[in-house]
Amino acid sequence: MRIVRFIADKEEGIFFGRMEENIIYKIAGNLFEQGKFLRSTGEKYEQIEVRILEPVNPPNIIAIGLNYREHARESGVELPQKPLIFSKVTSSLIGPGDDIILPEQTPDKVDYEAELGVVISRPAKNVSAADADDFILGYTCVNDVTARDCQQSDGQWTRAKSFDTFCPVGPWIETELNSEDCAISCEVNGEVRQDSTTGDMIFSVYEIVSYLSHNMTLLPGTLITTGTPSGVGLGYNPGKFLEEGDVVKVKIQGVGILENRVVKP
Amino acid sequence: MRIVRFIADKEEGIFFGRMEENIIYKIAGNLFEQGKFLRSTGEKYEQIEVRILEPVNPPNIIAIGLNYREHARESGVELPQKPLIFSKVTSSLIGPGDDIILPEQTPDKVDYEAELGVVISRPAKNVSAADADDFILGYTCVNDVTARDCQQSDGQWTRAKSFDTFCPVGPWIETELNSEDCAISCEVNGEVRQDSTTGDMIFSVYEIVSYLSHNMTLLPGTLITTGTPSGVGLGYNPGKFLEEGDVVKVKIQGVGILENRVVKP
Repeated sequence: MRIVRFIADKEEGIFFGRMEENIIYKIAGNLFEQGKFLRSTGEKYEQIEVRILEPVNPPNIIAIGLNYREHARESGVELPQKPLIFSKVTSSLIGPGDDIILPEQTPDKVDYEAELGVVISRPAKNVSAADADDFILGYTCVNDVTARDCQQSDGQWTRAKSFDTFCPVGPWIETELNSEDCAISCEVNGEVRQDSTTGDMIFSVYEIVSYLSHNMTLLPGTLITTGTPSGVGLGYNPGKFLEEGDVVKVKIQGVGILENRVVKP
Repeated sequence: MRIVRFIADKEEGIFFGRMEENIIYKIAGNLFEQGKFLRSTGEKYEQIEVRILEPVNPPNIIAIGLNYREHARESGVELPQKPLIFSKVTSSLIGPGDDIILPEQTPDKVDYEAELGVVISRPAKNVSAADADDFILGYTCVNDVTARDCQQSDGQWTRAKSFDTFCPVGPWIETELNSEDCAISCEVNGEVRQDSTTGDMIFSVYEIVSYLSHNMTLLPGTLITTGTPSGVGLGYNPGKFLEEGDVVKVKIQGVGILENRVVKP
């Protein structure tokens, strides 16, 4: 099932809907109190009548660094012994089709990172990997956009990864996915830059949810972005960074395609 | 003016109130749409009738590292050339009087950090230091609790600073404060461990708000915690870390006292 978050011309508010083909069936009540069996209000919309937003408005965006074997190698670091946690600020969120804005003061080394996003359904605390699936609402595409110059100069990664528009997410939450071996890629202007599979992850989605839940309570709606495969712009020589007019597509098999254009402010 | 956030026995919900002596006057409408001239509902409560919570439920907690000259020296690092940004996850928030829980897996090097907290009133983007005060609702006390062993092993600080209960905040938001030279201290069981003034800050509150707002949009309710003075547990030899039963008080002149007890899970 695909869950979208949207606004519609004909009424005020932000809603969740179940999307089938080009029809959106509005979901009743609180998405995060219903599990995977969602009630519908009976209202439906053509896709053309709505604007699809980032599929979740998370209380926190928790990110995992260096979680693909090949990407850890291209970054010149040892494979991590445990998931490396950092976070992105929620004001960086944008939806499918929204523009990625190159920051005025640091426009030169803005990089893409295709990532599998996980959306938490209910509070998760001290959950085992075997039980983790019960706390996952579904999966989405994330582009963990990063200003490499800030990342290197600050040491702490929060600023480099939290400029406005640096967290494109979408186009929807797919509730049915076997996350163990999905093709994941990133294209810039049609050129494939990242081309891998979630099977190259060092820590699986379930291991990540379990680990995080032993270090904090994961609140409903939390977005976890699970690391990026090799092929980031920084990994090329010379580096291939994002430029005005570029179109970036994050594709995940079984989830969908997240597309955003790069613009100057 | 002191703004508290509270729950009351006699009705459901979480409310903001203006506190004078021991009386709380309930605030009408959205606190973050009113500026500093707040409307009252006319309802009032004795303090004994309510439970005072952390004074804000922020969309993000943005933290500044190494922002006091003496603390940078005790940490053995160069003075930063610009504010060092990291973030704490919002599930770590607790209020005045709530317990700080030593994490089961990393209980041995849990440290206090007394900090001046700043609460943002309205969206701040590309704000000058001269204008920053117009975007500040007020000030509160924060204890930026940190598991030093995780901080050192991870490199990224998010996990070490985001365990549940690691962000005590309160007891209220003080809207009238000159933040340039306030005494700030931390006591553990009555022993003064940190004893400084915000005058030792490398970057002032206004400079921090301006810098952050040039790197991201600060959303209404954002909590900024502005760095800690010297005297953290890690700075002592041997280190003085928090233990079960300890009572930690963060005191800021003109704001108030934030008190929390340390417990085992």
